[in-house]
Amino acid sequence: MRVLGVDPGLTVTGWGVVETDGSRLRAIGYGTLTSDAHTPLPLRLSAIFHRLVQVVGEHRPGVAAVEEVFMARNAASALKLGQARGAAMVAVSSCGLVVHEYSALLIKKSVVGYGRAEKQQVQAMMRLLLSMAELPPADAADALAAAVCHIHHAATMQKLEALS
Amino acid sequence: MRVLGVDPGLTVTGWGVVETDGSRLRAIGYGTLTSDAHTPLPLRLSAIFHRLVQVVGEHRPGVAAVEEVFMARNAASALKLGQARGAAMVAVSSCGLVVHEYSALLIKKSVVGYGRAEKQQVQAMMRLLLSMAELPPADAADALAAAVCHIHHAATMQKLEALS
Repeated sequence: MRVLGVDPGLTVTGWGVVETDGSRLRAIGYGTLTSDAHTPLPLRLSAIFHRLVQVVGEHRPGVAAVEEVFMARNAASALKLGQARGAAMVAVSSCGLVVHEYSALLIKKSVVGYGRAEKQQVQAMMRLLLSMAELPPADAADALAAAVCHIHHAATMQKLEALS
Repeated sequence: MRVLGVDPGLTVTGWGVVETDGSRLRAIGYGTLTSDAHTPLPLRLSAIFHRLVQVVGEHRPGVAAVEEVFMARNAASALKLGQARGAAMVAVSSCGLVVHEYSALLIKKSVVGYGRAEKQQVQAMMRLLLSMAELPPADAADALAAAVCHIHHAATMQKLEALS
């Protein structure tokens, strides 16, 4: 299974592709794309869309995972985050991938062991879990964590199905 | 000039295509698409994306206009609106169209004459301006109004450029 994780944001969007065969996990690719506030909004969103379409074309994941968002700090940041999320999710689904959403709590629990983990802990754990040579950038680490969460979740679902 | 106006929303997205040759304006097509809250979010956004790509393919507008949003009522509705806007804007720009944003105030001023116009006034004015046989649905009327605003704005810009 090859999973694309995305951590969308208007200023920084992180992405990461994780592959598993059995219990071994491997980071196939990861990165961040940034946009500056002086660029018109439609172009910023379009850049997120096109980069993610390109990432899917390059790394051929079969499914995608993003962090679920229920609430943002305030209306202004919710609007920004929402627009980036919308652009990112349709980029991935326009490539034919099903997008799964997982809560931040579940993602952190899944990769660090508890839901209130700090950004640095997620980065360090991703490096360890995915045998990476260097620490991934924070936003890419969050994206990789979403992908790993989906892999764990899918494995659990498979076991449950086998039992029933 | 043929302009696509979009009024994005997670529950209802309105769209309208307006054509002008000189001073005559004509509605080429318009409509709304709705999605229910029980459908998973990625599918709702994907439906907005695909419908708008289809609309562009059917009606071949050359440019697009959407209402600019600075602020929403609260964080929860801002997030919903943002995601729908993000999906709508990248749908249109992925078809190669440039997307222009206009404030609600400017759009209403441009089509009704003053910025605080009610939804019903926008509907009635669209029917009149575009010689429509029936009153368009409110969200389609808002989308048509964004398109008309862009046409007025582009005409003014052209006159200013001719003067300079």
